[in-house]
Parts: sequence; structure tokens; C-alpha cells
Amino acid sequence: MVAASAAQSSTRPRLAPTPWTSVQFGDLFWAPRLRLIRERTLPALHRQLRTSGRLAALRLGWRKGMRPVPHPFWDSDVAKWLEGASYSLATHPDSGLGNAVEEAIALFQGAQQPDGYLNSYVTSVEPEQRWTDLRDGHELYCAGHLIEAGVAHFLATGQRSLLDVVARYADYIASVFGTQTGQKRGYCGHPEIELALVRLFRATGEARYLQLSKYFVDERGGEPYYFDLEGAERSAPRGSDGYYRRHGLRGLALRRYNQSHAPVREQAEVVGHAVRAMYLFSAMADLAGETHDAQLLSACERLWSHLVGTRLYVTGGIGSSEHNEGFTADYDLPNDTAYAESCAAIGLIGWAQRMFHLTCDGRYTDVLERVLYNAIAAAIGSDGKHFFYANPLASQGEAHRQPWFAVACCPPNIARLLASLGQYVYSTGEHDLAVHLYVRGSSTLSVGGQAVVVRQEHDYPWDGSLRLDLELPHPSTFTLWLRLPGWSRGAALQVNGERIDVPAVLERGYVRLERTWCAGDRIELELPMPVDRVTAHPAVAHDIGHVALQRGPIVYCLEQVDNPLPLHTLMLSRSAQLTARLDRAYLGGIVAVHADAIAADTSTWNGQLYQTQPPPLRRHPLVAVPYAVWDNRSAGQMQVWIREAGVDDPL
Amino acid sequence: MVAASAAQSSTRPRLAPTPWTSVQFGDLFWAPRLRLIRERTLPALHRQLRTSGRLAALRLGWRKGMRPVPHPFWDSDVAKWLEGASYSLATHPDSGLGNAVEEAIALFQGAQQPDGYLNSYVTSVEPEQRWTDLRDGHELYCAGHLIEAGVAHFLATGQRSLLDVVARYADYIASVFGTQTGQKRGYCGHPEIELALVRLFRATGEARYLQLSKYFVDERGGEPYYFDLEGAERSAPRGSDGYYRRHGLRGLALRRYNQSHAPVREQAEVVGHAVRAMYLFSAMADLAGETHDAQLLSACERLWSHLVGTRLYVTGGIGSSEHNEGFTADYDLPNDTAYAESCAAIGLIGWAQRMFHLTCDGRYTDVLERVLYNAIAAAIGSDGKHFFYANPLASQGEAHRQPWFAVACCPPNIARLLASLGQYVYSTGEHDLAVHLYVRGSSTLSVGGQAVVVRQEHDYPWDGSLRLDLELPHPSTFTLWLRLPGWSRGAALQVNGERIDVPAVLERGYVRLERTWCAGDRIELELPMPVDRVTAHPAVAHDIGHVALQRGPIVYCLEQVDNPLPLHTLMLSRSAQLTARLDRAYLGGIVAVHADAIAADTSTWNGQLYQTQPPPLRRHPLVAVPYAVWDNRSAGQMQVWIREAGVDDPL
Repeated sequence: MVAASAAQSSTRPRLAPTPWTSVQFGDLFWAPRLRLIRERTLPALHRQLRTSGRLAALRLGWRKGMRPVPHPFWDSDVAKWLEGASYSLATHPDSGLGNAVEEAIALFQGAQQPDGYLNSYVTSVEPEQRWTDLRDGHELYCAGHLIEAGVAHFLATGQRSLLDVVARYADYIASVFGTQTGQKRGYCGHPEIELALVRLFRATGEARYLQLSKYFVDERGGEPYYFDLEGAERSAPRGSDGYYRRHGLRGLALRRYNQSHAPVREQAEVVGHAVRAMYLFSAMADLAGETHDAQLLSACERLWSHLVGTRLYVTGGIGSSEHNEGFTADYDLPNDTAYAESCAAIGLIGWAQRMFHLTCDGRYTDVLERVLYNAIAAAIGSDGKHFFYANPLASQGEAHRQPWFAVACCPPNIARLLASLGQYVYSTGEHDLAVHLYVRGSSTLSVGGQAVVVRQEHDYPWDGSLRLDLELPHPSTFTLWLRLPGWSRGAALQVNGERIDVPAVLERGYVRLERTWCAGDRIELELPMPVDRVTAHPAVAHDIGHVALQRGPIVYCLEQVDNPLPLHTLMLSRSAQLTARLDRAYLGGIVAVHADAIAADTSTWNGQLYQTQPPPLRRHPLVAVPYAVWDNRSAGQMQVWIREAGVDDPL
Repeated sequence: MVAASAAQSSTRPRLAPTPWTSVQFGDLFWAPRLRLIRERTLPALHRQLRTSGRLAALRLGWRKGMRPVPHPFWDSDVAKWLEGASYSLATHPDSGLGNAVEEAIALFQGAQQPDGYLNSYVTSVEPEQRWTDLRDGHELYCAGHLIEAGVAHFLATGQRSLLDVVARYADYIASVFGTQTGQKRGYCGHPEIELALVRLFRATGEARYLQLSKYFVDERGGEPYYFDLEGAERSAPRGSDGYYRRHGLRGLALRRYNQSHAPVREQAEVVGHAVRAMYLFSAMADLAGETHDAQLLSACERLWSHLVGTRLYVTGGIGSSEHNEGFTADYDLPNDTAYAESCAAIGLIGWAQRMFHLTCDGRYTDVLERVLYNAIAAAIGSDGKHFFYANPLASQGEAHRQPWFAVACCPPNIARLLASLGQYVYSTGEHDLAVHLYVRGSSTLSVGGQAVVVRQEHDYPWDGSLRLDLELPHPSTFTLWLRLPGWSRGAALQVNGERIDVPAVLERGYVRLERTWCAGDRIELELPMPVDRVTAHPAVAHDIGHVALQRGPIVYCLEQVDNPLPLHTLMLSRSAQLTARLDRAYLGGIVAVHADAIAADTSTWNGQLYQTQPPPLRRHPLVAVPYAVWDNRSAGQMQVWIREAGVDDPL
């Protein structure tokens, strides 16, 4: 056993995500999903954009009385699809998809107004209402997604066709908003443009986009309160007033709903609409990094701790209630009514990635992995054409994925995330290479300008025996950081057959291996994968007395199709053996968990609704499958948390 | 030990409830509550009727633009108060209350129209809309409560002042509704008049009222569907359409909501609005008895079995959802969102009493006792002036009694039930005397025309050692039926010191003692009162893994004021000793249950939201108090069902 050098160093490396194009997926879990995204999802979404009228709306041909009436969010759906399609084209050229992308870009080009403004809904339906409802009109939100699409298309293709459009739009927006005389001192009710502008700054090098992002973030929640001023100037109520009234969202609750209840630096709790929160915090993290703003970083760290300490589902889902599509109270994590919107999980992925790069702390990538393998993976069905909007952790059998939604934010969001999944696997720097996710496949990365091929060979997440082989044109000294997942215990590590003392080289959740690496170097990481019984904090009333099964990063659930009885009647004794078995033919190849469980025996119950005897019990097999794959077979009950047969008088 | 004669006889006695005036309450449980009803509740309700405008509305002086606008249900609130006040005056004369009653009667007299019609809302506000919205207008419902008030006032005082008014109204109604040409073939969306007409028939001997009741009951749910015909004739939407739309109640769901989805004889499941169901089933039971209608009785028995087998809360509350103020699905008994409307429990008391008298079966009076000591007792606060509308079985601390409601059905309903509580204690017949409830006090009953004084001496429901002494002017042969509560096990019985073999004399839940009774005869019934752990049918997902504590008829709950920790973190091991202690100073004199329980120890939790170790535990005392008295101290959490520390691998 050799101790790696400088193992206790606390210097944090400067790392950046690698391009999504650099990673090739050859694993059992993601590779089939990414293929689905390319072959099924992106074409299916394009059909939806066409048949729903979203593409046509960009021709600005709508006139009063025509059906369908365009909707304020429509452009963002097209933009997110465009972003996802661009990512996909870069890794898997496809002329059909490429043509569809060019067509959509042409539509956006054609819809841009002489002054740079670009919004099909406002231009067609309410041209006189431009920028009059920042709180709920989603104009800047749509602009943000369009900017992201422009950046993605540029990064994917090197073409400036859409980038120029969005840059012109951003320039126009910069002329409208700001602190100069005559400018509007507003910001969007739905954050998104803030992070998009940072991406635009990075793609173009133009600092004014960073400034505009910073303006939007800093202005938020200030006094006088912009949304009140805006409301007072309106001649008619806002279209969303009825929605808010029905949901009891007013006053402070409404300010919290869109995170404008306080200046962002003062915010200490994650509140309100979960997607909005994630996009805002992502922008804050971006700005904290770009502007070296310790106060913003500190706000982000505080908000993160609050989220993961009190308001995160075990699946990585966030947002406990449909009521505000968001957060409720600490430890309030109902399972059957969990909202856990797919877009919120996507937003959390983005925030986690940014927080990691600010801190190099595995606690962020641990959450990223949890969200990805559970909440995100579950959001799309095995046909690639059905999607969850809400992701409950229990269902009586009524929750099913849908092909599309009137408000269709989630499906194209899932597509753009997965089409760019390659960016979450590694990070590199001048002298560092970090491995965040263990995914079989070969990737060509650049460390300080030198090409390094990392070849991962294993069956993660189903098996914890990992092998990483390096290929380099010539020996190179850099630090290899391997994430030691937060769920793992007793990991064993060998480099070229030599055992490494893992605790001695562990820094912020990563194993630090600094050496001169050569072609053929082999790292073997053994992550034992028992099936864990996860317990929630006792303050979580909905989970008390229950356990969730987790193996590696995979959170399990019970489905009625495997367990043909009312699921709540099943319970697991603490001493029950939990057996994990890989079945390559089952649900696309998964490890299922089997146990000898206990069921309340309704057949020998005395027929009364209440009785004074304990319920009769019987043995019953239990089969748990990854939450990621639920609702791909017969409809029926599902539950993540399993009742535990306690220990009588355990003290 | 002597075996009573004819113990196995299956002849069912013919019994009738005794007048409420015949029973004197001297117990610890009800006597203080009945005093509250007289001294606090009835005056407080009268103030509410006055200040809310309900009494003034009867002067018919409302004109367009005046505030408040009378409401369709208002007359029923006045009527229920009048009914309760009448009951009270008969047992406890009170000139102030008497004057208020006379004044209210005068108002009703003055509001009656020349044709007999009597409804302050319709007459003042929508005179042209008479009988145009039977589905939701509550006209016949209000008439029913007024009829009940008229009958009660007549029975209480012997005066016909209000009885004549309601009889004239009923005659007018009989002219409007029926199967004759020119008559409306309608019935009320909210049953109530049906049972009221049977009471009017019994008070007056006029068979036409029974006929009218039978018409309303039989017509219900027939085709062509009256509420559709009525709707088609309307020029404007009904006022309730918006409410139904918001609650998704339409089509069959709306028909079930008001129990018009099928002819009553075909109804097999209790569905829809719980109060409506109870009032309808009570009328069906009345008619089954009065008209010897076996089909109606059979429908009632079927509906009863469905209710108590699948949809009854352990407190006796019914109606699982606020959504339809009623029933949902079998075994769907959520605790925190339980609706369990006070009026529904009151309706169930009435139905149970009627079913007993049709069958002489203790399964009905067992439920009656459960509802009375738990759901009903909890519905009114210890000040007599605050009331629950909904009666959840768990609360996070937000559920509190209110002095009044915009729809104020519950408070006066509670008052009229408790002011007439004497009618539920005994039944008598030509040769029979049945004791249903064990209540300390002296009552003078009539058995076959002969006065029998029953003096009960005990501390039921806090103690199960019961003594009943009889006083008769001369020896008399009759059968004494003593209810052996369904919750009791191992009862011991002595008559004049001689032991009786209880199982040998048990018939349908009652001990049958047929003999020649003499003055000074003493019955001693020993009902052991352990604290029972009640388990719900395993199909009840909300209660699985939990127990409710019950001792005698009393169902217990935890309140945070006694158990200062999050209540869901408490659990009870199966072996924990449960100690019952009477404390005469505590909450008006109650038996509390104490146990050495177990709590999840959040102080030694590792700070993470999720962990893979079982939660740390510690001992914690548990104090449970009767559900009947909850929310009379500090606000805080409450829960009836207590998590059970199971048995690890109990098989």
C-alpha cells in the first residue's frame, strides 16, 4: 500500500466541466436512454411542437379569433428542443434533425423584430403589452431559453446563425433594463435569463452580458418592489391573478413564490416555485464564480444546506407541493402528493454542477448523482416518448407519464439535459482531472492541453467493481480526482495493482491521486454495494417507521406489478436478507432487490373494520425495482418508502 | 349462578325510545355538558342568530341592496336552535329562553305566506324562484327542520303554536309535490324533510304526512331524472353550479353526492354527502318501520354494513373528504384531512337509533355509543360556545373550534342532539325495558303503563362497575335488556347478588333478564375496562402500523400539550404497560392513559436528512386523553392513531 503524495493538501483545483461531446457512453444505464433521446424523444418532441402550433406561431401569422391561441411559454419549448437537438447533432449527426433545427432557427430569425425583440406570443397576440407583466409574462424567461439555445447551437456547430439572433435580442434587452435613466428596473418573475446571459458571456466573451445577468440578480427583491410598481401601472389585472387567487398566493407568499421576497444575498431558505429557485441559484453560483463574489457564494452555500438538509426527496426530487409547484416547510416531504417537478430536478443538476466547480466538494456531485439516477431517469419512460411532470414517491396507480402537456416545460428540458449529459461526467483543469460519474465508455479529455483518454470498464450503477484505464500520448503529471460516492462505505482502491489507503487520500469526497500518469495506467476502485436501508430524519413525518432501499446510487421502489397486494400492507423486518440480482432481460437490464417480507393477512382478518388484536401476518416475497424505471409496465400502486417491522421495545 | 329464563328466545321485543324528559343525568361525562348546552350554548347560539341577521330575515324586510343578504339555509339554523331550546325548556324551564322561543315562533308565524309557504330567503330574495332549484336550494330541507322544530315544541310544551304552522306548511307542500297531475315530481337534494314528515305524522296521527314522506323517498333517483328536468326548465344556471364545477362534481358523481344516483331500495353503498346520506337513511328506516317495508329495511341493513365495515372512523366520525363533504372509497380513512362533519355524526346517531328499534340489535347501539362519546362529544368545546364543523383525527395544530360558521348547520345541530340526549338511554315496550347507555342518574320510565324508576350508580364511562337499582310501586313482570357493549370482554353480572351466566342470556348484544321485578332489585354489571390497542383493518392504509387506544367507549388521542414533541415521533411498543388514571381535576374529570413509550431521538441524529442507520431512540412518557376533550387547552398537534413499535420478524 502506498500513500499518495500531498494527500492532505487543501488546495482546491480550478476545474471546468468538459464538453458534452468528449464523453462516449457505453453503459447499461445511460447509453440506451441517450439513444432513445436521439431516436425517439427529439423527433417526437418536434412533432409536438409542430402539431401544437408552437412552430407555426413563430411565423407571427396569428390573428384574433384563430385557434390555437399562442401561449406566452411557447417559444421556450421550441428553444429547449433546439438546445437539446443541437447537443445531439454534435455527437450524432443526423440530417433530418439538422434540417429541423435549421428550419426552427429560420423561424426565430424571421420572428425577430427590427429592434431585436423576439417573442412570438407578445408580438402576435399582445404587441402593446411588451414588458408590462414581468412578474408572470415569462418574456425574459423565454428569452433566456432562446439564449441558451443560441449558445448551444453555436457550441455544437460553430455556426453563429442563432447566436447572432440571441445576441441581438440580448443587446436589445440590455437597452431596456438597467439602472440608467429611462430604463426599466425590472427582472423576470421566472429566473432563467440570468444563467443564460452568463452562458452568452462565456460563448462570446462580451462582458456586457455578464453585467446584465448581474443586474437582474442584484435587482431582485429590492425596494421599491418592482412587481408592485408594475402592477400599479397596468390598466387590467394580470392574467395570472386568478391562478394565484385560487392557490392563495398573495403578499409575502407570492413574493416567495418567485424568490423576490428579499435581495438574493439575504435569502437563507429555499422557498417558492422550485424550478425558479434552481435557475436563480444557478445564476447566483455562476456570478459568484465569474465575479469572485464571496457573498453570493455564501448565500448559495446557505441555501444549498437548507435544501439538502430539510427539503430534498430521497430520489433527488424537490418541491413538496403542487400548490405552489414548490417548497413548503422543513421536513414536509409527502410522498403521494410530492410534486418533485422534472424541471426542478433538472435545475438542481445545474446548480449542483456549478456549486461543485466553485468548491470542488463532493457533497454537490453526490446530490447530482442522486438526482440523475433517480428523479431524472424516472422522468422519461422506456419508450422515450412519455414524460412525468410531477414525480411522486408513491402512487395509488393514477400517476402516469404523458406524451405532452399544455405547459410543456418538462419534456424538452429532459431532452436537453440528457443530450448534454456528457458534461457532467468529468471536469478538467490545468493540472487536474476529476471523475464525477462512473459510466462505462471511452472519453477523450484535455488536461492542461494534453489529451487524456479515460476508458471506464464496469457495470456501474449495477456493480461497484470499477476499472479506469488511462491512455496518454506521453507521461503527464496531474492530479486525478475520483469521486468516492457519499453512499459508499469500505471502498478499496488500487493503482496499477497497488493498494491505496483511501481515507488518507480523501479530500472533500474525492480520492486525490497526484502522480505522473502513463499510458496503460489502471485504476481499480471497488465500491461495495450492499442494499442499504435508508432512514429519513425523524422530523419527516411521512417517512417515519419506513425505510427506502438504496443500492449504490439507485433508489428503489415497490410496484404492484411485482408485488400483487396493497403495497402499504407489506413490511420489511430489520433482519430480512436483501438480495440484489442483475437481470439483463428485466426492464432494460436492472438489478432488482428481493427480500422475504411480511404482509398483513387480510384473508384471516375478522371482517370488522376495527379489532383489538394485532393484525394477522404472513410471509410475502418483496421485489423492489429502481425508481428510475417505474411505470413502464402495468399500472398500479408504487411506493418508495417501505414500512419497517420495528423492534418491539427496542430499548 | 342462575340461568335466566328464555335466554335463547329470538323473539324481538317491540321497543320505542323513551321521552328525553324521562332521563335525569347525574354523571361526570354528560351532565356537565348538558348544563353547558342549557346555560351557554343555547344563549350563545341565539345571539348568533340575532347578530347574523337570521332572526331579522324572518321579518321579510330584506330589499335589494341591503346587507346582509339572507341565505337559503338560514331558516334551518333558527329551526334547529328552536328545536334544541324546546327540548331544554321541557327539562329545565327558563323564562328567558322561553321568551326567545316564543319570539322566534312568532317570527315564523309572521313569515308564513297565505298559502302556507314559509321560507324567509325565497320569499324575500327570490320570490319567483319558489321550488325551482330543489337540487340545491334547500327549501324542503329547511321545511324539514322547521317541521322537526314544530314537533319538538309541541312535545316539549303541549302547545300547537308552531306545530300548526308547520302542519299548514306541510299540507301546502303535499299539494305541490306528488304524482297527481299538475304536481311536481321532485324531491329535495338534501334529504331531511322525509324524516321530519314521519315525526309530524307521529305527533299528529295524520297519515298524509307519512304518505308524503314515502313519496319523497320512493321518488328519489327515479327516471326521468328530476334534477335534469328541473335544470332544463331553468332560465339561469343554479347558484351551486360553480361550487360543483370547482369540486369536479358532475354526472354520476353529482347524483351520488345527493344520493339520487339510484332508487333508494337499490342503493348498496354509502356514497356522497355524509349528512344527506344519514338523513335519507334515517327516513328509510322510519318508513321501513311504519310501513313494514322489508325491502327498505334490507336496503338500510346493507347500507349500514357497508358503512361500519369500510367507511367509519374509529371515533364514529364519517365522511372522509371535504371535497364532497362525504364518502370516498372503501377503507379510505385519512386522519389529518378527515372531514367527519359534526352533523354527519349527529345523523348517524339518529340512523343508529332507528335501526336498533327495527332490529333490537346491539350492533347499532354500539355504534351509537361510539359516535356519542367520541365524535359528538368532541364537536363542542369545554366552554360550550365553540364547535367543530370538521372533526379530523390528526392535526398539525391548525384545527380549532369556532363560535359560528357562515354555513352554521353544526352548532345548533349539536345543541338539539344533546338537549334531547335523554331519548337515547332507554327504550321501553309493553313488556320490556332496554338500557342502551350507562349514565348515572335516576329516570322514571313507563313499562306497559307501569312506572319504573331506574337508578344508575357508577362512574361510567370512566369505570365499568355498574349498579342499577329498580324502584316500582308493585312487582311487575317484564324483560330487562342490558346492553353488553361491543367493546367489553369478560363481563360479570349479578342480580340481587346472584351471578348470571352472561353468555347464556346474551341476545343480539343485550343481556336478557326476564323476571318479576320488585322495588329494590339491584343489578350489578362489571365491565372490565382495560386500555385496548385497537387495530384498523389492514386495508386502511392511513392506520396501518398504528394503534388507537380505547378504554370502554372512550377513544383516546395524543395532544402536544401533554406530549411535548412531534407526535409522529412517538411510538408504543406492544409490551408497554398502559395505565388508566382518573383525575377529577383534569379536563373536567377524565381518565387519562399513561405509558412508557419510545421516541425517535432527533438530538442524536447525525444532522443529515437521510442516513443508513436506524433512527436513535429514547424512552419518552406518553399521555393520551379522550378525543372527546381535545383542543381545550394549548393549540398543538393531535393524533388518534399511534405508531406501534412492531415486532421484528414477528413470524
